[in-house]
Amino acid sequence: MPVHQQTITVSCRRQGTHEFTDDVALAVQESGFTSGLVNVFCQHTSCSVVIMENADPSARRDLERWLNRLVPEGDPDFEHTLEGPDDMPSHIKMALTRTSETIPFANRRLLLGTWQGVFLWEHRRAPHTRKIVITVVGE
Amino acid sequence: MPVHQQTITVSCRRQGTHEFTDDVALAVQESGFTSGLVNVFCQHTSCSVVIMENADPSARRDLERWLNRLVPEGDPDFEHTLEGPDDMPSHIKMALTRTSETIPFANRRLLLGTWQGVFLWEHRRAPHTRKIVITVVGE
Amino acid sequence: MPVHQQTITVSCRRQGTHEFTDDVALAVQESGFTSGLVNVFCQHTSCSVVIMENADPSARRDLERWLNRLVPEGDPDFEHTLEGPDDMPSHIKMALTRTSETIPFANRRLLLGTWQGVFLWEHRRAPHTRKIVITVVGE
Repeated sequence: MPVHQQTITVSCRRQGTHEFTDDVALAVQESGFTSGLVNVFCQHTSCSVVIMENADPSARRDLERWLNRLVPEGDPDFEHTLEGPDDMPSHIKMALTRTSETIPFANRRLLLGTWQGVFLWEHRRAPHTRKIVITVVGE
Repeated sequence: MPVHQQTITVSCRRQGTHEFTDDVALAVQESGFTSGLVNVFCQHTSCSVVIMENADPSARRDLERWLNRLVPEGDPDFEHTLEGPDDMPSHIKMALTRTSETIPFANRRLLLGTWQGVFLWEHRRAPHTRKIVITVVGE
Repeated sequence: MPVHQQTITVSCRRQGTHEFTDDVALAVQESGFTSGLVNVFCQHTSCSVVIMENADPSARRDLERWLNRLVPEGDPDFEHTLEGPDDMPSHIKMALTRTSETIPFANRRLLLGTWQGVFLWEHRRAPHTRKIVITVVGE
């Protein structure tokens, strides 16, 4: 089976969700495949890949605020604190969400729902450049 | 690589889990492939796809009750409330669970464990008809 | 498309994370494919597959402790209690994390990030032998 694979970077200046749906759509077009699956894999353990509503930004703000409240920094039970107060919460938020998404496509286009976008969710506070491996399989 | 793809709908009359394992098994049989992977992708951001125990319904009831308690409606921190009190909790529950599952198959049969079923987890209260894209890749 | 598939077992003597990255890497090498995707699927509903930091064990200890605190045993709302006090929390922890991971590979090597490892996360207290289906697709 032919495989199309590329690594992209997503620059995150702040904690929160950063959309990169267009990069995934472009990789599918560059693959030359008509239909199949595209896997988007995050090579880090302190940020996530998620599919979320991309219409109203308030939905993502509420999601981010809610998860920050569920997994607060400064938890007295944390033992792994050497890399800063936002490090261990970042690992937990990653485990509660997703490291990769696998998305179908047909007619060279992503089969996302009307309101779905693909996001890199940065859980650290400092700016980071994150690597995403995009793998397209299909025909 | 040959790809077999179809979209099914799952009618959800109420909040909670709705099994559609048989539709996934049927798509695998219709693909004509002997072994490979089947991806089940939910085209919405206020419901989820999950694999869960399908033997004793009380396990799913407890799971649903627990998540409803973790993500209650009427959270005073929510800003995104125009679509009703159950909308923002639905997005959060979706992000905490899954948008897709990728399941192996062999001898034309899903390689699920004895107690595993595939479910559409509707997080909204009103009835919805949900679209699931099933993509089979294999040989 | 050629498919390489095998089932491995992971022996869990205790609750917590058990790394099996090497088994996944070996399956990729045995497939003979140069590049593609490997899916790691857990055939159980009371344990998870997750990708997590594999350098400092304290990060995993904190993650496990945090999730145990979020989903305590003995919840008075639980109805599904016949299989023991750790059964229903195990199903919930599974639903909040992952049943499978799909990981890219190239040059016969997993494209994991520097600190990423693949883990079976056992949520039950008693020792269990768990089955993982590894499916490799590629070229």
